[in-house]
Amino acid sequence: MISELRRDPTSGAWVAIASARSTRPSDFRIIHGEQKKGTCPFCYGSEHMTPPEILALGREVEAPNAEGWQVRVVPNKFPAFSLDYDDSIDVDPDALEQDRLYVSIPAVGIHEVVVEAPEHDSTFGTHSQSRMEDILTAIVMRFRALRQDNRVKYLQAFKNWGRAGGASLSHTHCQLIAVPIVPEIIQTEVDHAGQYKDRTGRCLYCDINEGEIEARERIIQESDHFLTFCPYASKFPYETWIVPKQHKASFEDISKDELSDLARTLRLIVGTFELAFDDVPYNIVWHTAPWNGDFSAYYHWHLELLPRLATIAGFELGTGYYINPTAPEVAADALRESIPEESKN
Amino acid sequence: MISELRRDPTSGAWVAIASARSTRPSDFRIIHGEQKKGTCPFCYGSEHMTPPEILALGREVEAPNAEGWQVRVVPNKFPAFSLDYDDSIDVDPDALEQDRLYVSIPAVGIHEVVVEAPEHDSTFGTHSQSRMEDILTAIVMRFRALRQDNRVKYLQAFKNWGRAGGASLSHTHCQLIAVPIVPEIIQTEVDHAGQYKDRTGRCLYCDINEGEIEARERIIQESDHFLTFCPYASKFPYETWIVPKQHKASFEDISKDELSDLARTLRLIVGTFELAFDDVPYNIVWHTAPWNGDFSAYYHWHLELLPRLATIAGFELGTGYYINPTAPEVAADALRESIPEESKN
Repeated sequence: MISELRRDPTSGAWVAIASARSTRPSDFRIIHGEQKKGTCPFCYGSEHMTPPEILALGREVEAPNAEGWQVRVVPNKFPAFSLDYDDSIDVDPDALEQDRLYVSIPAVGIHEVVVEAPEHDSTFGTHSQSRMEDILTAIVMRFRALRQDNRVKYLQAFKNWGRAGGASLSHTHCQLIAVPIVPEIIQTEVDHAGQYKDRTGRCLYCDINEGEIEARERIIQESDHFLTFCPYASKFPYETWIVPKQHKASFEDISKDELSDLARTLRLIVGTFELAFDDVPYNIVWHTAPWNGDFSAYYHWHLELLPRLATIAGFELGTGYYINPTAPEVAADALRESIPEESKN
Repeated sequence: MISELRRDPTSGAWVAIASARSTRPSDFRIIHGEQKKGTCPFCYGSEHMTPPEILALGREVEAPNAEGWQVRVVPNKFPAFSLDYDDSIDVDPDALEQDRLYVSIPAVGIHEVVVEAPEHDSTFGTHSQSRMEDILTAIVMRFRALRQDNRVKYLQAFKNWGRAGGASLSHTHCQLIAVPIVPEIIQTEVDHAGQYKDRTGRCLYCDINEGEIEARERIIQESDHFLTFCPYASKFPYETWIVPKQHKASFEDISKDELSDLARTLRLIVGTFELAFDDVPYNIVWHTAPWNGDFSAYYHWHLELLPRLATIAGFELGTGYYINPTAPEVAADALRESIPEESKN
């Protein structure tokens, strides 16, 4: 059964209620279990344990769902969003009655997993340059394919790492979830960037890049195509943004040169995190333009690396605001110092 | 040094950057350490380890900061918000320039701890009725005192329990943080409730109560003054709301009868959680009317109990939407079954 997207009448927020896997109290011990090597569905030889693959890079012979791949994209076995729904149901959220307390639509969308490497013990920060380029290429390919489908409005790409980062399988992977409604956080960013453009004529993110270069104190690294810094209002300790220098709204429009540079940057930055912290849990979250309009004039794609060193607790859940125990200036300083000498620019 | 409230130019969200306790990578192992019995600042005999108390209930002789109390309110030793700031600085966020990228005000406010019991091993779910009434009374007293201070606009009361719930000290306590800006989540709720009132002439939360009574399937418990249910669009598995039946915007206007009933309800519900789940981490979050206007016609205070059985991960941080693996109907059913027979109504 497809999950339901329910609207919270008190906030307008949407929640995906995954009915198919509804869990009783006693299930929560099992859910949190970790996959052992040997029984892992993402290792060579376990290709049959996932649904049939969507895409694989690096396999020399054309033999779907066999070994030999370097990066493999498969449907999530327990999808939170799916295209398998009764299409007689109206799924346009804008057509729904405003004052009804109980409003839901099917959770129309796509939920895929990008297995980053066949090796069970790989980490994101230790991938080779060609591996990292393959991972990014696979994600770009899925972005370009999925944006053709007008049932979905946004593709959320992200990585969960570590228990506190929400990774339920320990074999390194990214996830792609295409959703039928533009996410609240992205809509807010698009609105803010649009208003800034209206008032100043400029792109907010281009100005932020310039401001950071001028201020210097929050920059971790600068490459040909990317600026990496701890943002001024970092919500999380050691939060790090990777922002393209060239104005571009959509991740899927990344050039070949930018992709290579992003691969190098991610290896350097995530590698630095893995060295500086002892087994750091984190999320990497893609921010890119939605597919329900043309935001090219003022939105600006970027990645956010969110280390999960502090807990989202009652204050954050009550207010929506964060308390960050580490000033971004201190964080950037410590991260710059942790970059291996030979990689410094 | 007082913390800074910085505005994120991409979203408008405010972040408290606690400069005083800025942490380097190596500090994060220490931060997550647990307080052992005997060195705990919240136990009898350690009263000198906290800043001087603000309020204590249950002590028979008037001897501040001595043993004998039942519930004790003290300033947080490492406050995220404080009234100790240079008052020549303009702290009105509305006076700030819209287009400046780097906007901050001092984190003006109050940060207090409500120590719920002298016993180190108490839990919220096993408090006696009179202890729970004392805890709620102490919180109400602080609400009534702090709302007199026009430097703060909202008081966020909350409880963090368990590591995943963000509790850094294991001795059971609640926290109070008064903030100079109405929190985003509360502002959104107030706006939604106001629009609903405009369109229908009714209180949104009163209608939700009625809807839940009619639907029956999400109700856990009903008492004279409160309805306890898993909300229709629960963000968290087993999320539970406790909503007063009588329309009232502000928690601090709770009557004596309501307070006793709330104490009974909290004991029953949190007690049931502690029985049903093995060592469940959770947050309890107060939602009440802000102090910057009169919202009595349409806002409606309530408590949200948020079990932290699922992790807030990349999808939630990227989109602002949640994936909940447990339908609230299933959750309510399981919780109803877990209520001890003698407590059922």
